[in-house]
Amino acid sequence: MNYKYPKTCLTLTLLCLAISAPANADEGMWLLNRPPLDLLKQKHNFEPTSAWLEHMQKSTARFGGGSSSSIVSADGLLMTNHHVGSTQLKKLSTPKRDLLLNGFYAPTLSDELKCEDLEVRILMSIEDMTDRINYVAPQGASADQIAKAKRVEIAAIEKAAEASTGLDCQVVTLYQGAMYHLYSYKRFTDIRLVWAPEQQAAFFGGDNDNFEYPRFNLDTTFFRLYENNKPYHTNHYLRWSSTGAAEGDLIFVVGHPYSTNRLYTVDHLKFLRDVSYPTILQKLWRREVHLLTFSARSYDQERMAIDSLHGVQNSRKAFVGSLAGLLDPDVFSKKVKSESKLRSAVKNNLKYFADWGDAWDQIAQAQRDHKEIYARYTALDTRRSVIRSELFKIANHLVQLAEELPKADEQRLDHYHDAQLDSLYLSLYSPSPILEAMEIANIESGLSYLAETFGANDPLVQKLLDGKSPRARAEFAVKNTRIGDIDIRKRYAAGGQTAIDASTDPMIALAAAINPEVRSLREHYETKVEAVETQAYAKIAAAQFAVMGEDIAPDATSSLRLSFGTIKGYTESGKNVPAFTNMGGIYKRSATRGNKPPFDLPQSWVNHKDQLDQSTPFNFVSTPDIIGGNSGSPMVNRDGEVIGLIFDGNIHSLTWGTVFSGKSARAVGVDARAIIEALRKIYNASNLADEMIQGHRK
Amino acid sequence: MNYKYPKTCLTLTLLCLAISAPANADEGMWLLNRPPLDLLKQKHNFEPTSAWLEHMQKSTARFGGGSSSSIVSADGLLMTNHHVGSTQLKKLSTPKRDLLLNGFYAPTLSDELKCEDLEVRILMSIEDMTDRINYVAPQGASADQIAKAKRVEIAAIEKAAEASTGLDCQVVTLYQGAMYHLYSYKRFTDIRLVWAPEQQAAFFGGDNDNFEYPRFNLDTTFFRLYENNKPYHTNHYLRWSSTGAAEGDLIFVVGHPYSTNRLYTVDHLKFLRDVSYPTILQKLWRREVHLLTFSARSYDQERMAIDSLHGVQNSRKAFVGSLAGLLDPDVFSKKVKSESKLRSAVKNNLKYFADWGDAWDQIAQAQRDHKEIYARYTALDTRRSVIRSELFKIANHLVQLAEELPKADEQRLDHYHDAQLDSLYLSLYSPSPILEAMEIANIESGLSYLAETFGANDPLVQKLLDGKSPRARAEFAVKNTRIGDIDIRKRYAAGGQTAIDASTDPMIALAAAINPEVRSLREHYETKVEAVETQAYAKIAAAQFAVMGEDIAPDATSSLRLSFGTIKGYTESGKNVPAFTNMGGIYKRSATRGNKPPFDLPQSWVNHKDQLDQSTPFNFVSTPDIIGGNSGSPMVNRDGEVIGLIFDGNIHSLTWGTVFSGKSARAVGVDARAIIEALRKIYNASNLADEMIQGHRK
Repeated sequence: MNYKYPKTCLTLTLLCLAISAPANADEGMWLLNRPPLDLLKQKHNFEPTSAWLEHMQKSTARFGGGSSSSIVSADGLLMTNHHVGSTQLKKLSTPKRDLLLNGFYAPTLSDELKCEDLEVRILMSIEDMTDRINYVAPQGASADQIAKAKRVEIAAIEKAAEASTGLDCQVVTLYQGAMYHLYSYKRFTDIRLVWAPEQQAAFFGGDNDNFEYPRFNLDTTFFRLYENNKPYHTNHYLRWSSTGAAEGDLIFVVGHPYSTNRLYTVDHLKFLRDVSYPTILQKLWRREVHLLTFSARSYDQERMAIDSLHGVQNSRKAFVGSLAGLLDPDVFSKKVKSESKLRSAVKNNLKYFADWGDAWDQIAQAQRDHKEIYARYTALDTRRSVIRSELFKIANHLVQLAEELPKADEQRLDHYHDAQLDSLYLSLYSPSPILEAMEIANIESGLSYLAETFGANDPLVQKLLDGKSPRARAEFAVKNTRIGDIDIRKRYAAGGQTAIDASTDPMIALAAAINPEVRSLREHYETKVEAVETQAYAKIAAAQFAVMGEDIAPDATSSLRLSFGTIKGYTESGKNVPAFTNMGGIYKRSATRGNKPPFDLPQSWVNHKDQLDQSTPFNFVSTPDIIGGNSGSPMVNRDGEVIGLIFDGNIHSLTWGTVFSGKSARAVGVDARAIIEALRKIYNASNLADEMIQGHRK
Repeated sequence: MNYKYPKTCLTLTLLCLAISAPANADEGMWLLNRPPLDLLKQKHNFEPTSAWLEHMQKSTARFGGGSSSSIVSADGLLMTNHHVGSTQLKKLSTPKRDLLLNGFYAPTLSDELKCEDLEVRILMSIEDMTDRINYVAPQGASADQIAKAKRVEIAAIEKAAEASTGLDCQVVTLYQGAMYHLYSYKRFTDIRLVWAPEQQAAFFGGDNDNFEYPRFNLDTTFFRLYENNKPYHTNHYLRWSSTGAAEGDLIFVVGHPYSTNRLYTVDHLKFLRDVSYPTILQKLWRREVHLLTFSARSYDQERMAIDSLHGVQNSRKAFVGSLAGLLDPDVFSKKVKSESKLRSAVKNNLKYFADWGDAWDQIAQAQRDHKEIYARYTALDTRRSVIRSELFKIANHLVQLAEELPKADEQRLDHYHDAQLDSLYLSLYSPSPILEAMEIANIESGLSYLAETFGANDPLVQKLLDGKSPRARAEFAVKNTRIGDIDIRKRYAAGGQTAIDASTDPMIALAAAINPEVRSLREHYETKVEAVETQAYAKIAAAQFAVMGEDIAPDATSSLRLSFGTIKGYTESGKNVPAFTNMGGIYKRSATRGNKPPFDLPQSWVNHKDQLDQSTPFNFVSTPDIIGGNSGSPMVNRDGEVIGLIFDGNIHSLTWGTVFSGKSARAVGVDARAIIEALRKIYNASNLADEMIQGHRK
């Protein structure tokens, strides 16, 4: 389940540039408007038409904050992973209707359950804005001035595009400023749950098997897009393959990989290795134990925490693997060598050296400046605060809205631009239930973390604790805040700064107390780190293109990408790992592990064992280049037909954030045939299977 | 199961002194040669005779490194907690004989299983050495010189005492140097396992119920002391109460509480709160997740890790609770107030102020000096190294032995004095199996921790990794070391420094690489922290005695202590928690939690439910003052008869390390009647029950 948007690592949004030689094996998350046509033709004898590419683009969708999905019928049926949809499954659950435990199926449209705060976006167009943005600042401006001018220009472009198209428009930074593309999305907010298996079928083997292979996971969920209260009708949907795929087949993955750092400089990677990842892991270990002990107290608390726990375990395993990669001299020395090669080439050319020679030292300086604030900034920054509470998040948005809305649009902080307010309000006014016990535990844990990390006598910590223990402060804030009420939130949003200043709400007080320092840390980050990195990486990009040519894929940035590769087993500790597992394998694995959690089978699988064709391919591995965010990406054949669904990578792929290798590292997918077999034989959902096979509802 | 010697917090051995007013409720872990006679008479109308005290002293025993136990028959039957004996149970287990899972019973002497590397000590005499040690340094010597002179004198006293008595002799520091007592122990190394229940009966409810109440735990195990290959015969054993105890009864606890910090200065507590505990917790969280994921891989690995996992979870819960106490202004302000009162009294007396006025600032300075090295010293110090491997521990001992043995006895590091070598060799040459998978995982984890904490480019980290990844370095060291072989260890010990210098063994290399820095950190700690604290606390002790009188118990130091109190329920969130649970309660609690782990019942309890008298008292709470190390302490009535066995404290007692309160905080014990009932009705071990009731074997 690793390929979901990694909530815990917003830090990885830093973009970056290629300094390595072109595509190793099937490396590359390619732009749909700049596909590697030569490479595809040469290596795989495949020439995608622009119609093929457009169809892929419009048949796939960005799911929620940053995962992937695809449309698989003319009636807006949307396929993604169970672990991507699970946040919604949790929100749609009640003490009497536990969708994570029992799964769900809506046999008719009227049975479908509407999600309360979910957005899905289909990319309708891509437009190049590079020149307009890159030449906006006057010559001789400082890195910080240039960065600010660009931010203003980007906000203006997005706002104008939204006004003229009615679409949801976003400028995507590529090659860290070598290119800027305007992505315009059709946005859906009426999305309904159609079918989900039991979490135990989707996540069989749990954290233990996560990132491992062989696997037996039906990590699949179906939603449906609605428009004007009717299913969304479209011709841009992916047909279902009638035959499935076989070992050696060329396949494609289309999705929204979140972030890679393959192209960071060595000093930047050292920052990840020695500062960033260890700090993130400390928080993850702590939070995992916290969620485990919280869950163990009662079944109710387990239900509240299970989705967060899976997310944390997933991130922890991913970061442990990524860090192990950076601590492996075999991996790290590759980066050192390729950087040294590029720097030599720059040094040996007077013009190159004059233009770009100082870039690496600038990146190194930015890391030192980042390190200075890293622990505090990442702990306090409201976008990734250690206080992981819904109420606190709401309070923060209210405090920020009051401060940002009065400003001119292009002067506002990201997330508060006019173009972004619809999404913000959708989340801010979400009627999703507030889970009191979990809110208290999370705020207590966050406040204690701040005291543990910065000392109980730290002025901010003292202000936040307000003379109470972390537990008492958390209880007081949760039990006495009124922003659990959506109308009160709206009243604060309408009342602006006056309402915030007059507030005696303890949750608003927490958010307001943290706000000044977060803003000053953000200023430090944006001027001394981000702006410097942007300028320096633009130089390195230019050097890279000049020295090594332009056929390089940009690092992942959560924008739509096309990867390709073949279905292929691998070798591990001298043993051959076949590409496919079959559905019968889940029964064997469960038996081997004594049918005990996390290897217990859902009752439905026990009951229907005999009806099932156990030889049906279940999961399979392949070589396309993927990363977190690709969760829910469709896997298609040359004809663009669905043959599988990405849901994970194996343990060897955990270094793909920084170094790609096709040797033993693999993407892991659910076979399309297993989805159909399970729907028909286990879940009594043949209508749904038929919709995909036929391409439309009956 | 919290009251075992806390392996992870050697740092808490720092001793300290009373600055609070005398005994709050039943506060006090009293010296057996200085019992609070007035208090006992006044409050409980009890006057222990010296025969009573001597009998208590000689009927109890220090178990292994620092837990408690008692002799409960004339034939050397030794009672302690299951969680105290579990390390031995694990060592005595094999893949085919899992003593933790299935328990054990030896119906005859010849069935008893000999422990390979266990020591048990009975305290035979106490002698006051205060004057001899305190006046050993010339007047005007520096804190560091005084500390060194005392260390030399202590080693000489211990060595001479051992030579003349043949006992195991140890000088115990009390009131941080206000008193020094020589404790002489009779040492046993032939100890055999008699009976243990399934771990699931001993630790029912697992980490979830640990430190909670009501409880249902049969946390009991019996060993037998042997001398000359025969059961140890003695008149000093505790008789078993025929009636048990009731609410309101006065009871006594005799055991080896490990360490309390009740008497630290405010600055010293701030160091614990802001530096020490957060660092310890970071390691515990990390290690808990590491052990959980390691255990989940297979049943074999679960068996290897389960005992460590329980230990880590126990420590984690204890430190979370202790930290929460220090972060609670209600608790902390008590310390601030009592210190301020004492300092005022000192300030208002010219002579006091001249003699002792600077002590608090000296402690504060020592904390700053400690903070400087804390992270590195605690990570590297071989006594608590983050590299938690048996092989690495062995290698460290070999490296230290080579360096220490050639020195004069009194110049050696602690643990390498002549008087300590028997114990050291017992552990060094233990035939306990080396668990390869766990060794590799633990060394990998430790090396990665050092890289995460100090950076991969840190010179020591580079030296330890030796150009490999943490995983590769760990595998290489474990697979290529030869010190798994006991004869090789003996050869190194005999070969001394020459053998170490000539060694190419990769585990010896790891230990040798870490040795120089550890020694230099230790020097910093001993001179700038320990010596300064010792001198300053001696002043504070004097001030304390002068201002508040001498009837104050010293902080716990792992030496034998007597606590007392009454059996008493308490109130929690407005609800009355009765003092006793009964044996029927375990079936109810298991059913309420769906009979799922950790609330599943052992098969033996399911099978014998009907035979059992379910109204038999099972666990109970009482007010005596206990702490980690008291695990396995007998609880006796006025007549010195066993009425129970300490195994835990409730959640409110977790602040007892720094602040004692008798309001809701309680010690938790197994009722003596439940032990008999379980032996007879569930475990078919009536012979064993009879031995305790009759006081000897049949």
